[in-house]
Amino acid sequence: MLDPRLGAWRERADAALARALPDPQSPPQRLHAAMRHAVLLGGKRMRPLLVYAAGDLFRADEAALDAAATAVELIHAYSLVHDDLPAMDDDALRRGQPTVHVAFDEATAILAGDALQSLAFEVLAATPVNDSVRVTLLRTLATASGAAGMCGGQALDLAATGNGGTLSVAALEHLHALKTGALIRAAVRLGALCGDASNDDLQHLDRYADALGLAFQVRDDLLDIEGDSATLGKTAGKDAAQDKATFPALIGLEASRARLHALRQTMTDALAPFGEHADALVVLGRMAIERDR
Amino acid sequence: MLDPRLGAWRERADAALARALPDPQSPPQRLHAAMRHAVLLGGKRMRPLLVYAAGDLFRADEAALDAAATAVELIHAYSLVHDDLPAMDDDALRRGQPTVHVAFDEATAILAGDALQSLAFEVLAATPVNDSVRVTLLRTLATASGAAGMCGGQALDLAATGNGGTLSVAALEHLHALKTGALIRAAVRLGALCGDASNDDLQHLDRYADALGLAFQVRDDLLDIEGDSATLGKTAGKDAAQDKATFPALIGLEASRARLHALRQTMTDALAPFGEHADALVVLGRMAIERDR
Repeated sequence: MLDPRLGAWRERADAALARALPDPQSPPQRLHAAMRHAVLLGGKRMRPLLVYAAGDLFRADEAALDAAATAVELIHAYSLVHDDLPAMDDDALRRGQPTVHVAFDEATAILAGDALQSLAFEVLAATPVNDSVRVTLLRTLATASGAAGMCGGQALDLAATGNGGTLSVAALEHLHALKTGALIRAAVRLGALCGDASNDDLQHLDRYADALGLAFQVRDDLLDIEGDSATLGKTAGKDAAQDKATFPALIGLEASRARLHALRQTMTDALAPFGEHADALVVLGRMAIERDR
Repeated sequence: MLDPRLGAWRERADAALARALPDPQSPPQRLHAAMRHAVLLGGKRMRPLLVYAAGDLFRADEAALDAAATAVELIHAYSLVHDDLPAMDDDALRRGQPTVHVAFDEATAILAGDALQSLAFEVLAATPVNDSVRVTLLRTLATASGAAGMCGGQALDLAATGNGGTLSVAALEHLHALKTGALIRAAVRLGALCGDASNDDLQHLDRYADALGLAFQVRDDLLDIEGDSATLGKTAGKDAAQDKATFPALIGLEASRARLHALRQTMTDALAPFGEHADALVVLGRMAIERDR
């Protein structure tokens, strides 16, 4: 059932990321090594795959998608490096590997994250599309990354940690719409914008991406309860230990699973106008819901 | 002797920064407040002034310069927030105010810095110039901010801290060319690119900016020895305490002062082709050398 293009796109993304990252042999080597550690040691590459799948739907040039996929994944990777820091989530393990501040040191982890964010915009500014599209790509990614997007969601998450039970479901959904959703929506949009997507197309894709982003997070919450650390590649059971706001904590396990089912239907409906051309996006939506890590 | 335009430009920069920053009343309030604290509580606005002065030389639109000046200062401000963190320079005082992680907390400081960087690119992507220039501005700022620029310089600085005496003068100059110089060069370039500067013009300006960036740092090193904390608004004497590589430590006080004098001459020579139109840039160069904070 797996779309064979997904494996090829994942390889393209890995190769493009390796090319974009600075040479580990040239100074400052420690910074470069930390940046590469943060990006190249695995990861599902969900966001790059969304870029390629959305771009494919609109006949986008694959070299343009390489740049967009790289930029989105660099933003995602930097956010993980900073989220894992002792002052934030204090995680020692990520994708089964020591986190950047453990493998290197805190100062290097802060700097590597900062440099990865700059690199994302540098790569995106060189996307082989016309300048008007480039500017739209850059604005889309910057807005999704900042205080009105990913960073804002992480700030809401920090505020909620330790009193998770007091958040409303609507507030939790808003938190995730920013923290995870904004970048997933940007990934899909970047891919589509590299092709000939219309405004109507983008609106359908936004509905799909928003449902996928939320589903991804509900699944994450469930995995923290049902999964084991070895499969996850990170520490299971941390949400409850930190009294984090999660869907299972707020609405229970059964309702969380039902929510996942409903989100799958929302994705299917949103993609219906594109017919079978959207199969890769359908598969990615299913993966977000069914994944075990 | 002070160019009267500098005061007006500083006010323009402050107003543009205040407009660009997110509303402190809207959520996440703590993140927004930290971002505003980092940017709006003073600062010399050297980089914005360089943007306006370079832009003025090439008849750039002032609204375009507002965006470029804001973007450069946001990058500078985020770098100070992260540099001040306990894992980096561990500074409690900046511009006479508590640093962001002291006034708020470490996690908020990390996030505020991250969001300020995103905001810089978001603001720059909306600069009222044509898309081709926009892309050049974005690429220039991203490159200057990342591993080949400011972040790389900070990484070199971290590596040198604690064994400052072992660095060569050439290595120290390279460190500062990245850590401080890259963003100062970008500030001057951004201003000029918003106007009708030619490639020749940009090369003269690069020479000026490189000399100014180095002079700024030599003066910083001297102030850390000769200045007092109250005037500086930050802790004096920290370089020696941390065994940092500084010009006075490597070449002595007299040679450092002589170096400043030579750099002033380099700036004058580089600006000569522009005649009196470059007076504001001349004054800014002098301020970098003569400042007492």
